[in-house]
Amino acid sequence: MRLQKHIKMTIREDSLRAFTKEVFLALGCSLEHAELAADVLVTADLRGIDSHGVSRLSGYIRLAEAGRINLSPNFAIESEALAAATVNADKALGLVSAPYAMDLAIQKAQKTGIGFVGVKNSNHFGIAAYHAMKALPHDMIGFALTNASPLVVPTYSKKRMLGTNPICMVFPVKNGSPIVIDMATSAAANGKLEIAEREGKSIPEGWLLNKVGQKTTNPSDLKSGGALLPLGSDFETGSHKGYGMGAMVDLLCGVLTGASFGPWVPPFVSFLPVLENQPGEGLGHMLGAFRIDAFRPKEDYYTAISIWVDAFKNAELISETNQVIIHGEPEEHCAMDRRVNGIPLNEKVYQDLEALSIKFGIQLIL
Amino acid sequence: MRLQKHIKMTIREDSLRAFTKEVFLALGCSLEHAELAADVLVTADLRGIDSHGVSRLSGYIRLAEAGRINLSPNFAIESEALAAATVNADKALGLVSAPYAMDLAIQKAQKTGIGFVGVKNSNHFGIAAYHAMKALPHDMIGFALTNASPLVVPTYSKKRMLGTNPICMVFPVKNGSPIVIDMATSAAANGKLEIAEREGKSIPEGWLLNKVGQKTTNPSDLKSGGALLPLGSDFETGSHKGYGMGAMVDLLCGVLTGASFGPWVPPFVSFLPVLENQPGEGLGHMLGAFRIDAFRPKEDYYTAISIWVDAFKNAELISETNQVIIHGEPEEHCAMDRRVNGIPLNEKVYQDLEALSIKFGIQLIL
Repeated sequence: MRLQKHIKMTIREDSLRAFTKEVFLALGCSLEHAELAADVLVTADLRGIDSHGVSRLSGYIRLAEAGRINLSPNFAIESEALAAATVNADKALGLVSAPYAMDLAIQKAQKTGIGFVGVKNSNHFGIAAYHAMKALPHDMIGFALTNASPLVVPTYSKKRMLGTNPICMVFPVKNGSPIVIDMATSAAANGKLEIAEREGKSIPEGWLLNKVGQKTTNPSDLKSGGALLPLGSDFETGSHKGYGMGAMVDLLCGVLTGASFGPWVPPFVSFLPVLENQPGEGLGHMLGAFRIDAFRPKEDYYTAISIWVDAFKNAELISETNQVIIHGEPEEHCAMDRRVNGIPLNEKVYQDLEALSIKFGIQLIL
Repeated sequence: MRLQKHIKMTIREDSLRAFTKEVFLALGCSLEHAELAADVLVTADLRGIDSHGVSRLSGYIRLAEAGRINLSPNFAIESEALAAATVNADKALGLVSAPYAMDLAIQKAQKTGIGFVGVKNSNHFGIAAYHAMKALPHDMIGFALTNASPLVVPTYSKKRMLGTNPICMVFPVKNGSPIVIDMATSAAANGKLEIAEREGKSIPEGWLLNKVGQKTTNPSDLKSGGALLPLGSDFETGSHKGYGMGAMVDLLCGVLTGASFGPWVPPFVSFLPVLENQPGEGLGHMLGAFRIDAFRPKEDYYTAISIWVDAFKNAELISETNQVIIHGEPEEHCAMDRRVNGIPLNEKVYQDLEALSIKFGIQLIL
């Protein structure tokens, strides 16, 4: 059935999850990996991070078909200490290697108070928050970082040298949303440019350089050789700090683990080649957990973080138009809404899923 | 001797170190703590971070005289696990409590691969890089974070809720400067506003709000009730990310350790009162170390980071005017120069030191 344009489509969470799982099974994933990969993508859609949900499903499939993702990976721990390890992901989906590493980090933190597990030879891991949030039910603070294919310049350069390299850190809260800080280290994430381009809008100055290194407000300049600016945008407003944060992520996820790094990180899109003379293997991630009661009694922590949240929610506003954000709360509210009312699918994503439905003979029930 | 204004004064590193040590001894510090505190401050001056060097000496003294710093502290470990701990600093100078905690983090990382040690009930710790860099000779990556007295707004608020809350991470490099990323999470550090104010210059838009929450380019507006903006400056260019990073630092250093946090963090200047109903004790820090060979053979790491540094140094420039910065390299070059040619002192800092020289009867030799 071909739906008319501009009809708003929504899909129930369980339908989207079942469909996505079946697609991964059809590709050859194990049941465990298919369920997990589907859960990561659908969680992104529930939380309103539509750029990292099922909209990417066909992209993962193209990478698998190009032989750049291995859907039957054997994970191997290459280095290990009581509180640390590095996992070779065997070219897996990051959607499954990152949860494996996070589980290991949590086990380590149970024993030693802290666990950090690096991953090399991996691929795009979806939303960082999914992985970091695994810490929450264990009364732990969670960390998730990943490097990504190069789109961002260092200050004063016009060359794409870093990915949007997100940093995610999550803090459990009793009787309220957890604090979930999950941010690209560029001024704006790629997804925001795609939306502006689709809608024919210009973008704010400070997001993008064109291919000769001039600031531009035309989102299409990214595809014609431009590059994203680091958080801070200009040197005088701190772009060297955004560059520094992106570099930190790359050094921890790439240089420390043995993954590739900098301009060599393999691109997400299958039509761009992987550069030769790779200095490491695949994408890299870093997952971590702090057990709260290694630092202080957890009741005291929960009391303190409630005071913190209340204080920030009630901080004096510039105007009543916009409230102070507690990171993660808008996404938590979105998820509550979408669990009840369904997940909206835009036309392009719906077409993508419809094509997969035909290709794999899997029914897509809205 | 009263020197004429505008004569450029320099002081030898060893003279400044000896003088600073004698001042701390005169105040009642142990020899070990006096030498350590002097080393932290002089290292800042050597590295060109003049805002955090001996220019702050009289400030620490005023806090000690107001009873807000304890110069004979007893450090106590309040919580501990194999890879984690929290130290109660007993109102010490952060200049001495942070190195104590970092040494403990390094010991833990020797055993388990990772060590993170929180500090509560502390005070301003000087430059974060000093503490994090203690990891370098052990083939470890070092971390140092601290919260600080409130000067920075969350996005959409006009209330000072966070300090400039720096994040520092250092990576050892063979045959070159270590990578030292040490950055305030505000768009600009307070010191830059002080310099602009002294020189009667305006500041870039994006650093500061005035007391009613409007953007301003007048640096004096900070002292008349204004507030610094987070890195990213505006919501549309990512200020919620800078706010998120400042929040991360506050949650790790304050909420997790039992130190104070948010708007309650005690001010550095002795003439501002400590707020009542403190939700924690003093300032908080977080010090950490990753042992590289817990993740991969260290030779492989050193090879990879050399490739990383070379690639970034040689990234294509927008113009020849400005080179790509490798974080920490300018400071390393500054230190090499100042070790040979002396440390420049501006008029105000010189007057401060001269006053201390008279007060304590300690000779200041230029």
